[in-house]
Amino acid sequence: MPYAQRYFFMINPSPITARAIFGPASARCVAIVLFLLPSVIWCAEALPSWNGGPARTAIVDFVEKVTTPGSPDFVPPEERIAVFDNDGTLISEQPVYIQFAFAVDRVKELAARHPEWRDKDPFKSVLEGRLTHLESEKHEKDFAELVLATCDELTTGEINQAAGKWLATARNAKTGRLQTEMAFQPMVELLEHLRSKGFKTFIVSGAGIEFMRNYTEKIYGIPPEQVVGSNVKMRFETRNGSSELVLLPEVDFFNNRDGKPMGIYKHIGRRPIMAFGNSDGDLEMLQWTTSGAGPRFGAIIHHDDAVRETAYDRESLVGRLDKALDEAPKNKWTVVSMKNDWKTVFSNPTKQN
Amino acid sequence: MPYAQRYFFMINPSPITARAIFGPASARCVAIVLFLLPSVIWCAEALPSWNGGPARTAIVDFVEKVTTPGSPDFVPPEERIAVFDNDGTLISEQPVYIQFAFAVDRVKELAARHPEWRDKDPFKSVLEGRLTHLESEKHEKDFAELVLATCDELTTGEINQAAGKWLATARNAKTGRLQTEMAFQPMVELLEHLRSKGFKTFIVSGAGIEFMRNYTEKIYGIPPEQVVGSNVKMRFETRNGSSELVLLPEVDFFNNRDGKPMGIYKHIGRRPIMAFGNSDGDLEMLQWTTSGAGPRFGAIIHHDDAVRETAYDRESLVGRLDKALDEAPKNKWTVVSMKNDWKTVFSNPTKQN
Repeated sequence: MPYAQRYFFMINPSPITARAIFGPASARCVAIVLFLLPSVIWCAEALPSWNGGPARTAIVDFVEKVTTPGSPDFVPPEERIAVFDNDGTLISEQPVYIQFAFAVDRVKELAARHPEWRDKDPFKSVLEGRLTHLESEKHEKDFAELVLATCDELTTGEINQAAGKWLATARNAKTGRLQTEMAFQPMVELLEHLRSKGFKTFIVSGAGIEFMRNYTEKIYGIPPEQVVGSNVKMRFETRNGSSELVLLPEVDFFNNRDGKPMGIYKHIGRRPIMAFGNSDGDLEMLQWTTSGAGPRFGAIIHHDDAVRETAYDRESLVGRLDKALDEAPKNKWTVVSMKNDWKTVFSNPTKQN
Repeated sequence: MPYAQRYFFMINPSPITARAIFGPASARCVAIVLFLLPSVIWCAEALPSWNGGPARTAIVDFVEKVTTPGSPDFVPPEERIAVFDNDGTLISEQPVYIQFAFAVDRVKELAARHPEWRDKDPFKSVLEGRLTHLESEKHEKDFAELVLATCDELTTGEINQAAGKWLATARNAKTGRLQTEMAFQPMVELLEHLRSKGFKTFIVSGAGIEFMRNYTEKIYGIPPEQVVGSNVKMRFETRNGSSELVLLPEVDFFNNRDGKPMGIYKHIGRRPIMAFGNSDGDLEMLQWTTSGAGPRFGAIIHHDDAVRETAYDRESLVGRLDKALDEAPKNKWTVVSMKNDWKTVFSNPTKQN
C-alpha cells in the first residue's frame, strides 16, 4: 500500500472512504461526504450513556472550552492530561476489588507450595473460604499481604501470564459477568470522548501496576505506559541465560492518597487538567489537579445506585467516600450520581458459553 | 473550519495539499502528488547525518523488518518501544553532565542561605571554584549531593522554573554552545525516523527526571511523560492555599544500572525492542531489552571522536564504557563509532547575540 494511503488509513479506518478518495474522480463528492460523516455521527453520539443534566453538561462544557481555538480557556493538546482512578471510578469495585479476587484465587493455587499459610492469617481465612470480602478495618493490610504473596519471586513475564490467564475467565461474584465486563460504560465513553478531543488519558490507581496493565488497553483503550499504580520492589537477574526482573514481596511505592499526585508527577511530569475519582484515596489527586493555574476539572463518581450497582459512601470499607465528598462543594468538583446521571451502567455482556 | 478539514490539517500540515483536496475537482491530480510528496522526500532523507556503513545499515534494516506488514519479524505499533539513555547518548556529557553544571550554578546561587556550605565539601570546593569537573572516583557521591541540594524544599513548579530559566542561557564550558544545542544531530534524526515508523521513543536516564523534562520536548520531541529518570522523595502539602508537591533532598529511586530496566518496567510496562546507551550504566538496560523474545536491537554510542567531540571509554570518570563494550560483540549489539558513522555531530548552533 503506498505511503499516503497507509497514512490515510491510520487516521480514518473506513476503507470505503479511502477507496473513494483514491479511486475514480467521479466518486469525489461521495468521498467528501463520507469524510465528514464521522464528525456528524460523533456530535450526535458523544456520551450516549449519560443522561442530560448538570454532570454531563459540566463535562461537555469544560472539554469544549479548553479545546476551542481562540477560547480564553484554550489548553494546547500536549497539556490535555486527564487522570482516572480505576476501581470504583472506571470499573466496579463491588463486592471486592478485582485484584483482591485475583489474589484470593492465587493464594489457593499456590497453597501447596506454602504449608506455612495453613496456620497464618489472612492466608488461613482465605484457604478456609472465610475471607472472601474485606470485612474489617484491617482489610488494607490483609489485601496488601495477599497481593504481595502473589508475586512469589515470579519474573514480570510470569506474573503477567498468570494475570492474563485469570482475567480471561474470572467472573464477578455478584453479577456473574466477566470481571473485564464490569467497566462502567459511561466512563468508557468519556475516555473515548476526551481522546477524540486531543486528551491523553491515564489511570492513576492504588492497585498493582502490572495487574491492571493486563486489561486496561483492551477495555479502556489505555496502553500500559499510561497506567500509574502501586508497585513492588524488583531484582534484576539472569534466569536460563535471559535477563529478567523478578518481583519481590515488598511494597516499593503505594500509589494512593498523597502517593497519587506523586505517582502522577513521577510518571507524567505535568499537572493534569482533569481528574476523576470516587473515594478518599483520590482526595489528594483531586486537590493537586484542581490547584493548578488555568482551567481545571475535578469529579467524583458517587455510588448511589443500589439497584443497578451498589450504594455506598461514608461507611464503606471498600472505596470509602467521606472527606472527599465534603470537599467537593468547597472545591467546585462535580459529583456524578450513578443513579441520576447514567442512562446505563454496564455495557452489554459477552454471551456466556 | 469544518471538522474534516481540521482533522486533515492535524495529519498534514501543508495548507496547499489540504486546499487542493477540498478545493475544485480540477486540482485533484495536484492534490495526490502533493499528498505523496512527503514520503518521497522522507525516503531520500532518512538519517542524513549518518554515513553509510554497518551501523546505519543495521538500524535501517531492523526498523524496516519490524515495520513491514507480512514480514516474519513484524512488530505491531503498540510494541514498538525504543529507549535511549540521555547523557552521552543523545547529548554530549563532556566536559560534565548538564545537570552537574546546573547544580554547581545553583549551589553558588543558594550559598547565601547556606553558610554551613562554606566549610563542607563538595560545596566548599564548588564555592571556591575548584570543583568544576568530576575529578575522582567519588564523583558520583559528590554529584548526587550537589543535585539533592538544588531541591532545597522547592515545589515542583519552582524547581522547573529554576531549571527552565537556567537552560535558556547556560552554555557548554568547552564549546560555548547553548547546553540545549549539545544534542547529537544523528540521534535527533534517529528519534524522528523511529517515530515516523510508529515507534514510541522514551528517555531512560540516571539524571534527575524533572531537570531533563525541561528540555526533552524542545530538543528531541520527547514529552515529559516519556522521560524516565531518577527522582527524589516528595511531600504533599498546602502552600498559600494551593496543593503542592515539595521536593526533598533524599533519593527515592536511582534510575541507573539495574535501576534502568526497573524504571522502564514501572513507567512503560513493556520490554522495549530497541535500546541505545553509551556507558556501563546502560548495561542492564541493554541486556534486558535484548533478552526478550522476537526481534531486538541494542546499540552503544562509542565516543571515539577526539576532534569533533571527546574520545573516552574505559578509563573515563564520566560515562565510563568498559564492561558494556566487552559485552557488545557477545550480544550482537551495534557499536556506533561517532568518528566513522556520523557525518556531523552537532546541528548548526543558534547565533549568539
